[in-house]
Amino acid sequence: MPGHAASLMQLPISLDPALPATLQEQLFRALQRLILRGVAAPGIVLPGSRQLAAQLGVSRNTVVLAVERLASEGYVGPVRGRGMAVSEGLPDSFLSAPPAMVRSGPRRAADRGGAITRPSRPPAIDFRIGRPDSASFPQAAWRRAVDRQLQHRLDGLFDYPDPAGHHGLRACIASQLAAARGIAADAADIVILSGLPEALDIAATVLSLRGRVALVEKPCYARALAVLRHHGAAVRAIPVDRHGLQVDRLPKGTARLVFVTPSHQFPLGFTLPLERRAALLGKASALDAYVFEDDYDSDFRHEGSPLTALKGLDASGRVIYFGTFAKSLGPGLRLAYVVLPRSLREPFLRVKDIAYRGRPWLEQAALADFIAEGSYQSHIRRSRRLYTRRRDVLGRALRQAFGPVDLSGLGGGMHLAWHLGRNLPGARRIAALAAATGVGVYPIEAAPAEAFGDRRLLDRTLLIGYASVEEAAIEPGVAKLARAIEED
Amino acid sequence: MPGHAASLMQLPISLDPALPATLQEQLFRALQRLILRGVAAPGIVLPGSRQLAAQLGVSRNTVVLAVERLASEGYVGPVRGRGMAVSEGLPDSFLSAPPAMVRSGPRRAADRGGAITRPSRPPAIDFRIGRPDSASFPQAAWRRAVDRQLQHRLDGLFDYPDPAGHHGLRACIASQLAAARGIAADAADIVILSGLPEALDIAATVLSLRGRVALVEKPCYARALAVLRHHGAAVRAIPVDRHGLQVDRLPKGTARLVFVTPSHQFPLGFTLPLERRAALLGKASALDAYVFEDDYDSDFRHEGSPLTALKGLDASGRVIYFGTFAKSLGPGLRLAYVVLPRSLREPFLRVKDIAYRGRPWLEQAALADFIAEGSYQSHIRRSRRLYTRRRDVLGRALRQAFGPVDLSGLGGGMHLAWHLGRNLPGARRIAALAAATGVGVYPIEAAPAEAFGDRRLLDRTLLIGYASVEEAAIEPGVAKLARAIEED
Repeated sequence: MPGHAASLMQLPISLDPALPATLQEQLFRALQRLILRGVAAPGIVLPGSRQLAAQLGVSRNTVVLAVERLASEGYVGPVRGRGMAVSEGLPDSFLSAPPAMVRSGPRRAADRGGAITRPSRPPAIDFRIGRPDSASFPQAAWRRAVDRQLQHRLDGLFDYPDPAGHHGLRACIASQLAAARGIAADAADIVILSGLPEALDIAATVLSLRGRVALVEKPCYARALAVLRHHGAAVRAIPVDRHGLQVDRLPKGTARLVFVTPSHQFPLGFTLPLERRAALLGKASALDAYVFEDDYDSDFRHEGSPLTALKGLDASGRVIYFGTFAKSLGPGLRLAYVVLPRSLREPFLRVKDIAYRGRPWLEQAALADFIAEGSYQSHIRRSRRLYTRRRDVLGRALRQAFGPVDLSGLGGGMHLAWHLGRNLPGARRIAALAAATGVGVYPIEAAPAEAFGDRRLLDRTLLIGYASVEEAAIEPGVAKLARAIEED
Repeated sequence: MPGHAASLMQLPISLDPALPATLQEQLFRALQRLILRGVAAPGIVLPGSRQLAAQLGVSRNTVVLAVERLASEGYVGPVRGRGMAVSEGLPDSFLSAPPAMVRSGPRRAADRGGAITRPSRPPAIDFRIGRPDSASFPQAAWRRAVDRQLQHRLDGLFDYPDPAGHHGLRACIASQLAAARGIAADAADIVILSGLPEALDIAATVLSLRGRVALVEKPCYARALAVLRHHGAAVRAIPVDRHGLQVDRLPKGTARLVFVTPSHQFPLGFTLPLERRAALLGKASALDAYVFEDDYDSDFRHEGSPLTALKGLDASGRVIYFGTFAKSLGPGLRLAYVVLPRSLREPFLRVKDIAYRGRPWLEQAALADFIAEGSYQSHIRRSRRLYTRRRDVLGRALRQAFGPVDLSGLGGGMHLAWHLGRNLPGARRIAALAAATGVGVYPIEAAPAEAFGDRRLLDRTLLIGYASVEEAAIEPGVAKLARAIEED
């Protein structure tokens, strides 16, 4: 059927030497496409290689190799004395398969660093919460710590990482926790993971939360709630007051888990006092519940020393402690950890190993070094001083612009909560007015926090982060905010 | 009660200036411990700061600050005119709490690189499977690619990474897949994740596998099976022959998922031919099943070109394609990806975002650069040549030592499977004999693969990896193996 073969040659096979794929590859794909689309039907004989080469302006060898590959994949086969023909055995279902395309070179993403998906341009002065100051990050020391790992034998690259995490890093964390949080743990109690959602996801599986009661604070971190609900837990929210979780309002009966943020209640910033910590541990025992302690924002204490963590007071092995480097270094690291009660170590690691395995080796190893040489600790000290100053400037600016204001969360952390007086618009309205003038302040749901429909929390609470806002921009930002509200 | 106070002073409070914690911190912890243990009971008055400072040989300021911190945490409170006393309000449950200990400096892990947990010393000549050659890794280029990311603005560090993965990296992968695997995908079809278990875990959730049929190859990757079982799938194993999955033995009825390794059947190394690929896609349609294509070992093809991936032939949007950088660069990176059918993109990302969020930014950004500059591609080409040579040397050595041997998986990949003749001991016995002489060869379950009790697979199959064994060590390794078997 030379007619068919000739008609095949009329078809647009366009080869482009500028594309990254070789001409041979391009020709293979083009012919494969013709076959798959049914343009070159079963039985059709391909033109000779000399002829095809001449027509396409490529070497004969290119054609021969492309056709050989078609043959090796079964698209064409030899016909006695007549060259190669499209195979008869190709199932009909193939003939409508989408063609494999030869694409041009890689598109470079606009944001090379980290593919940040934000709906629109961030405000010029963005009081967003939970973001560390990038300008004061010890870039040179961190760069050295990473590069040291890449100078020598890259052992960590060539094997699967320990699902529990880098041993040296776990030992460093244990040491830090003893000094800073009063937690007696060793490396074997610690598991490195990506963040709170992963930690809670694994805990929820280990504790078989489906259908069982999980108690959370009202308001609470929306992502924590999403994980609990994903696992089918029966979630009940217990209100917080100015001293955090109202422990005496915990229900009777049984519960499987209590999720709390004792250091700096998320997102309102209250600190759970010692008596309530003790009462909570007693109550957990009565409920037969585990306590998931999200030690939110404990790195930066502006007033006094941080209270000893619940985990440091836990006599009965009920507390799962969660800490993270997302706030002290950056969320792009994806490095966090849990300290587990002995009884949960083995089941937790077993579940983690099913799907998550270990964390990437490089930044774990670098961080261990960074802590061991003391760079981490001095970074934390510097950040704490910086954030304390910014908090002071923010508080002063708010009082200047709005008179007496009811703020919470001043004792530590990276943001404060402003409990809006009745004379002010609602939180969402203020956030929208502010955004229109290039200032970012946030209602509680943007934290993201879940208020369980509490109108006072939703309407009358505004969150203002100060850690990542330059000191000189804070007062102007607040002044713009005040003007925007006034002009409303 | 000065008597009590005096007795408190007799107790061993040992402060050590050589420890990393400050003396003030140590004293705070020591006193806290005494209170928590009930040694210093409620109501007991602490000795004066001057007295305590003299006794412990520390400055008075150290004592004052430690006691102030105890007071701020609620352990002690002022007693009119008599200094500080242990609080009465501490609940009984506290009094048996384990003490928070001041620990010595961080222990440095022996293996700084990556905390590899292996039960014992690896064999001197280790034919283990699935490990790339570390000596030929392009360390300098990789180091530069990582360092370039750390030289400039670390945007990626200071925000949460895109759950779908670094956009630039996804675009690079899409481009690679078009050229190498005949897959027409763009960045939006691709999700970066840590490895096969995570990919399958998310897919199992998205597809609601509980109680539904999942078809796997026999033998198959044990970790894949573990994920499917963890999700409560009704797993059925379909035997493979020399051409991979026996597609005509797929059951009638319905199934939710078919898990296959078409490029290089894991762990036996067979390649699924085109006709079976077509038949499998047709069968999946009849079963109303999704196909999970684990494109195992497709980076290194020793003979001919790789066949177009199932995903490249998929007309009906049923194929979830999985690829990884664990074999081409190293498993310590924890970087892999899926290419999703359009219908699964949104639910897959939603489930991923609940617990896993995005991958760490640094190595994703570095890898995008590494691919864009062509370093990745030339590394793959060099590795392929290296592994082809090692495969040849290994095959020759085996034939020299054992005569005609029945090997599979020679067409590509990083290991081969030896189907042992009846004249040889069983696979486990051989592995044990080899290990005793410092040579690592592996029975199928060490892959780790699941043989579903098939005695022929378990007894008569030995896996020998060659990618990470120096060429000069291959023949001596095989000779040692032969001697060990002979002397048995």
